[in-house]
Amino acid sequence: MFDKTRDTKRLTNYFEAFFPIGANPDGISVTRLGYTEVEDEMHALFVRMAESEGFTTYTDEVGNTYAASSMAEPYILVGSHLDSVVQGGRYDGPAGVIGGLLLMVLLKEAGLDIPLRVAAFRCEESSNFGCATMGSGLITGALTAEKVQKFKGRDGVPFTEVFTRRGHSLTPKMISGLKAYFEIHIEQGKVLEETRTQIGVVTSIAGPRRFSIELRGLAEHSGATPMGMRADALCAAAEIILALEKIATAEPDSVATVGVVHNTPNALNVVPGLTQIGVDLRSITNDSLDRMESAMRTTVQSICEERGVFPTISFTSGTAPVALSPVLIDRLSESAERLGISYRRMPSGAGHDAMEFPPLCDTGMLFIPCEKGISHNGLEQASLEDLLEAVYVLFDTVTRI
Amino acid sequence: MFDKTRDTKRLTNYFEAFFPIGANPDGISVTRLGYTEVEDEMHALFVRMAESEGFTTYTDEVGNTYAASSMAEPYILVGSHLDSVVQGGRYDGPAGVIGGLLLMVLLKEAGLDIPLRVAAFRCEESSNFGCATMGSGLITGALTAEKVQKFKGRDGVPFTEVFTRRGHSLTPKMISGLKAYFEIHIEQGKVLEETRTQIGVVTSIAGPRRFSIELRGLAEHSGATPMGMRADALCAAAEIILALEKIATAEPDSVATVGVVHNTPNALNVVPGLTQIGVDLRSITNDSLDRMESAMRTTVQSICEERGVFPTISFTSGTAPVALSPVLIDRLSESAERLGISYRRMPSGAGHDAMEFPPLCDTGMLFIPCEKGISHNGLEQASLEDLLEAVYVLFDTVTRI
Repeated sequence: MFDKTRDTKRLTNYFEAFFPIGANPDGISVTRLGYTEVEDEMHALFVRMAESEGFTTYTDEVGNTYAASSMAEPYILVGSHLDSVVQGGRYDGPAGVIGGLLLMVLLKEAGLDIPLRVAAFRCEESSNFGCATMGSGLITGALTAEKVQKFKGRDGVPFTEVFTRRGHSLTPKMISGLKAYFEIHIEQGKVLEETRTQIGVVTSIAGPRRFSIELRGLAEHSGATPMGMRADALCAAAEIILALEKIATAEPDSVATVGVVHNTPNALNVVPGLTQIGVDLRSITNDSLDRMESAMRTTVQSICEERGVFPTISFTSGTAPVALSPVLIDRLSESAERLGISYRRMPSGAGHDAMEFPPLCDTGMLFIPCEKGISHNGLEQASLEDLLEAVYVLFDTVTRI
Repeated sequence: MFDKTRDTKRLTNYFEAFFPIGANPDGISVTRLGYTEVEDEMHALFVRMAESEGFTTYTDEVGNTYAASSMAEPYILVGSHLDSVVQGGRYDGPAGVIGGLLLMVLLKEAGLDIPLRVAAFRCEESSNFGCATMGSGLITGALTAEKVQKFKGRDGVPFTEVFTRRGHSLTPKMISGLKAYFEIHIEQGKVLEETRTQIGVVTSIAGPRRFSIELRGLAEHSGATPMGMRADALCAAAEIILALEKIATAEPDSVATVGVVHNTPNALNVVPGLTQIGVDLRSITNDSLDRMESAMRTTVQSICEERGVFPTISFTSGTAPVALSPVLIDRLSESAERLGISYRRMPSGAGHDAMEFPPLCDTGMLFIPCEKGISHNGLEQASLEDLLEAVYVLFDTVTRI
């Protein structure tokens, strides 16, 4: 039933069609920010692709795109996203969407009448609005019209303005009729590669907790202000960045990242007067997140008091760590065993659309290796052969549940 | 001869005419970057102002503007600049230009035939091109066509392109015929205010030495990259920022400032892969500058080796510390004494156009207090009464040399 040569070629064709969209002049990376025209191009191509395979397509009220083999309910949904970070890679997201599409093609060819749809979600990355899984969050109830009011795009335009201008609804109909949700994604870590494992069966998804910290010092002449008389906002930020690194290193299965810094006035001859940093804390337990957040707040206060800098810590977004369905974890593991594909059960450090579905239906997720664990980077590489193995595992599972 | 009420009013009129140019929406600061249209407006107004006082005006090949009571040589040049930093104050630069203009008016009214010109220099601040005293440096030989090749504006356009488009020459005629150079400037520090002194007689100007440090780590997914496996460029930058703070604190009469940080890709969910910082070291002795630079280079190397980050340190610009004319320091001090104005001899931590003139002629400089030492900031405040005292001191000195 499985023809690896034929199916790898199909995945390659899908993948290469998306290849040029949002490509950067560096020749390796793509920038496909959520709710932009580049992401629209990705979705339009997905629609053409699915329709040429003979499937029905439709779009929901927040811009997510679906392909369906039939409109029967309850149905299995297989999804992922088509947006990317700034200067990101080509596998993060699209791998799951084209994997889902191939799965639907294989089920159709096998003459199996299993209601299944493939979803391409909008704006899974937080790179544009500082909030992740927006497309899936809005149709599962995780995100509400109220919660998105404060978000602004990289260009400063409020999310609600972008959203309304595009004709989307902030109070969309919730998704329903789901039997199960599955997602295939690249690992974005090095565990599978280093343990030479073909497939990761995801057990839980780490919860991100995000903050914006604004540090207000005093902008003064860099030459005429003695070191002891300064309230340097960037020096305070530097201390906080290093403190967060220590806090997360001490906490098991946790990370803390300051990925964003905006410094004002950002001039060579002015002591920085205002520095804003964006903090991303992640862990697979709420206890760890609580400990890190509490340590962060205490440390920021003491660093700033010492320096005469005034901090404002704002919580911007967050999701609790999520456990996936024990039943589906078992089923996916059994399918991998049956097909002779090596696998391991593992947590996900990164957030995914899959984390929005456990409140609605059983949710399962598969990882495929990615080279050196590099992701969110133009150097991101994964193998379409590995992706195919994941599609076969999923095929086996969906025919048995 | 001196009518304080009348002359304060004159200074106020001059000052208020410049007031709205480059004003920011914050209602307090101005942005008048060098070699931009806003700076052009400042110069055009200076020309109208000087001509309405009956003086001849002209512009040199790099855009500096001059007003002259006569074209006789040798002449005394009194100068300062009309550009500002981003979100800067209104006194830094213009105070010296309007002070010079009033001095020339007073000499004319007194019927004194002393050849004197007032210069408004271009682009004294490094905020636009990362290089300071460009207008005065280009006509005194401190800056050459070769040295400016590498500079780029805040908008990424090369300095040479901006310069050529504006019709300036990179190989201008050197300024000549100078008998002496004087400059009045706000202190940009707190020494005069805290010691309740009206006038500072500047003895030396600290030399800035500037560097760009590029830190190349690896951009990776913030959730899926464990803390121990990262090469975070921003964490390396943070360590360097704090190390520089320590280095300068240990060195007498010296400062080190990281005023600029550019972080890439600067996204919440990506470990920073590339961070560039701009470093400004200043001291009144070359020995101190050498020690700080050497400590910086060693520290950057060891921090980056530890973190697997690759540093590139580029020297961008610098000036040696400059001693001003001992004769003029004495003359200015005597004039202050004669007029009953409190004064102190002091070094300047900030760079000024004055530092370009000692190779060409005797150079003297006066400081006036500025509130709380705040400068390069919209909150910058100085008193036009204090400026007037400096003009009177300068009047007394130029009539005696």
